[in-house]
Amino acid sequence: MKNLVGACMFGQSGGPTSVINASAAGVFIEALRQKNITKVYGAANGIKGVLDEKFYEIDKEDVDELLLLKNTPSSALGSVRYKLKSVEEDETDYKRILEVFKKYNIRYFFYNGGNDSMDTCNKVSKYLLKSGYECNIIGVPKTIDNDLYGTDHCPGYGSAAKYIATTMMELYLDATVYNKGQITIVEIMGRNAGWLTAASTLASYKGYGPDLVYLPEKPFDIEKFLADVRKVADKNSGKCIVALSEGIKTADGKYVVEALAENNAAKDSFGHTQLGGVAATLANLVSEKIGGKVRAIEFSLMQRCGAHLASATDIREAYNAGKYAVRYACEGYTDKMVVFERQPGPVYKIKYKLMDIDLAANTEKKVPLSWIKPDDTGLTEDFIDYALPLIQGASKSPVEDGLPRFAHLKKIRV
Amino acid sequence: MKNLVGACMFGQSGGPTSVINASAAGVFIEALRQKNITKVYGAANGIKGVLDEKFYEIDKEDVDELLLLKNTPSSALGSVRYKLKSVEEDETDYKRILEVFKKYNIRYFFYNGGNDSMDTCNKVSKYLLKSGYECNIIGVPKTIDNDLYGTDHCPGYGSAAKYIATTMMELYLDATVYNKGQITIVEIMGRNAGWLTAASTLASYKGYGPDLVYLPEKPFDIEKFLADVRKVADKNSGKCIVALSEGIKTADGKYVVEALAENNAAKDSFGHTQLGGVAATLANLVSEKIGGKVRAIEFSLMQRCGAHLASATDIREAYNAGKYAVRYACEGYTDKMVVFERQPGPVYKIKYKLMDIDLAANTEKKVPLSWIKPDDTGLTEDFIDYALPLIQGASKSPVEDGLPRFAHLKKIRV
Repeated sequence: MKNLVGACMFGQSGGPTSVINASAAGVFIEALRQKNITKVYGAANGIKGVLDEKFYEIDKEDVDELLLLKNTPSSALGSVRYKLKSVEEDETDYKRILEVFKKYNIRYFFYNGGNDSMDTCNKVSKYLLKSGYECNIIGVPKTIDNDLYGTDHCPGYGSAAKYIATTMMELYLDATVYNKGQITIVEIMGRNAGWLTAASTLASYKGYGPDLVYLPEKPFDIEKFLADVRKVADKNSGKCIVALSEGIKTADGKYVVEALAENNAAKDSFGHTQLGGVAATLANLVSEKIGGKVRAIEFSLMQRCGAHLASATDIREAYNAGKYAVRYACEGYTDKMVVFERQPGPVYKIKYKLMDIDLAANTEKKVPLSWIKPDDTGLTEDFIDYALPLIQGASKSPVEDGLPRFAHLKKIRV
Repeated sequence: MKNLVGACMFGQSGGPTSVINASAAGVFIEALRQKNITKVYGAANGIKGVLDEKFYEIDKEDVDELLLLKNTPSSALGSVRYKLKSVEEDETDYKRILEVFKKYNIRYFFYNGGNDSMDTCNKVSKYLLKSGYECNIIGVPKTIDNDLYGTDHCPGYGSAAKYIATTMMELYLDATVYNKGQITIVEIMGRNAGWLTAASTLASYKGYGPDLVYLPEKPFDIEKFLADVRKVADKNSGKCIVALSEGIKTADGKYVVEALAENNAAKDSFGHTQLGGVAATLANLVSEKIGGKVRAIEFSLMQRCGAHLASATDIREAYNAGKYAVRYACEGYTDKMVVFERQPGPVYKIKYKLMDIDLAANTEKKVPLSWIKPDDTGLTEDFIDYALPLIQGASKSPVEDGLPRFAHLKKIRV
């Protein structure tokens, strides 16, 4: 634990969220306040910007614009998907990072991202510790997938959950409006974790949700799915709304699209698997096996960048995650990630704590199986209790011409 | 022109919008106020509810809930797609409607919908006029497609345009975030009119819009499209965002999906054309011909039911369209549709007028060709001037548990 004096570097990594820039604002505003931090840099495209010596001077930005980052989706500095090789395999990148850090006297490094990004952050941290170069490194969590280990939830999840629940309520009203049947299959992100798909049941909690919900935590049985849909449609004038996760797999561990493709059921005429996702593939199958009007819907990128529907709770927590990362680093902590600890009691409250970063790297946190209903098509009240506090409050994004006013950064290159 | 005394019937028809219920609120609240209207009915599933004698007693609803209809998307009474045959072909339905109207002394009939619904309204109106049964009939316009003839714009369009412009701004930030190329193809509704797709250029006006925009008003040339995309991607690090209308057709009048299917380029393994739309089909083609990362996105139903992003201007106008329909009918007008007339001058203002309903039935209003840029991939300032006033102001939907609170109607059957 050392109180270092020097510059700080911040990078954004992995898929966008509605609030990753809120964490950037938290890091920047706090770093500009700290006396031990002599200069604030933002890396273009995460670790790639460090390697390429491409970064921006954040002290030259207007503070008002930095605050607008709270309501600007995606990654204002640009993002990256770049996996560092292990030091044993190839030390080149690490040497380069050390060289750049020395050149600019970077003594604070903050990296904002999900599992893969925390892996990067962890590797850099361990290398610098071993090299003897003093630099306090703190990871700032981020992922709409909510699958980071060790934290009650992740910044980005609450806003995506609010988008999914709100949109599902609206879709429910739309998809059931006619006097004729319609089977609607909605595909939701989340990779191997079902947190986002589970958020569709917040709409059910309000009375406007999907009839059937399938998470990747449970094996997906195609015949059971068809039977489930048939059953709901039969008792509901042919209407059925399904929410399912992009990452659902059959019992033998194959993605559903792959499994169906092997049965020649989802290849296009070029002979390769359809670009469309699992909802489109299953819609084709339902159309074939059950018939009637079937519609596949993907929430696609909208669910991760829909900042106009961001949760105020999520924005505040994402900002604080960045702020506390800087504070803890300035107190001398390093090799950690910020985590949220939910406090017991009837009123929702979290504490911002630290965890060893290697615990976060590459570990996936799944939806507890006990929160999935016995028939595998819905979530229990435990999930509602968990998720509802995370979607509270509306974004207060400023508006110009009836449209959101995003942050305009000058992005002055060093 | 007669001041009639009797009951009123209101029906919703065609595809949902964010504000069709706002028009319902306008009709209901005004009808409940009018002394000549002795009873207010809402038909379940439009004209089908009249034929089946399935309707609700609106006077038994709470006024507070009726006002919440302003922020409740889709059609609260249920919708229908039902085309009345001509009287010459089959008089059965008309006789039945007359019978029901007589039985309940219905002297006011308001029908809310787009082209097809105005066709229904027109046919009923003409039949009743001919039959000698006195009933004042006014159509209330509605369609996100904005393709109704005779009105400056249609209720529903402003909200869908706001959804499209806002979402496109957010998508822009998401789709350009990486240091690698990505071609993003967004499919937007609108049938044979490009008004909705054109709304994506409101995002361009703010600096976050699509690079290429294709409307159905111009023939779609697949080779030119590929060349356009290649050109943008080449000068823009492989990044290109395309917005295109579901209704684009090739020069010989074929839908693009059909045209490509004929070349065996878009059939699935069942041998029928993919359920996926034109964006998915063109994404496959771009992936094949240009390569790199390609993503197809459909705004799907979300663009027409996204009430959380409704335009306050649109909500107000939709409400007034319903209100003025009732007022004009009570003044004795019949066989008309409410239209919006934009007033000259720098400040946006409309007047609510009437037009002969047969002019609205089955006529499509397209985007003026002079508003499309010479290279057919964008819109001129004329369109921005036209559309920007329509998306102003935010919905003030009440919120419960961080989610919208929709109207709860009792729906008491007669």
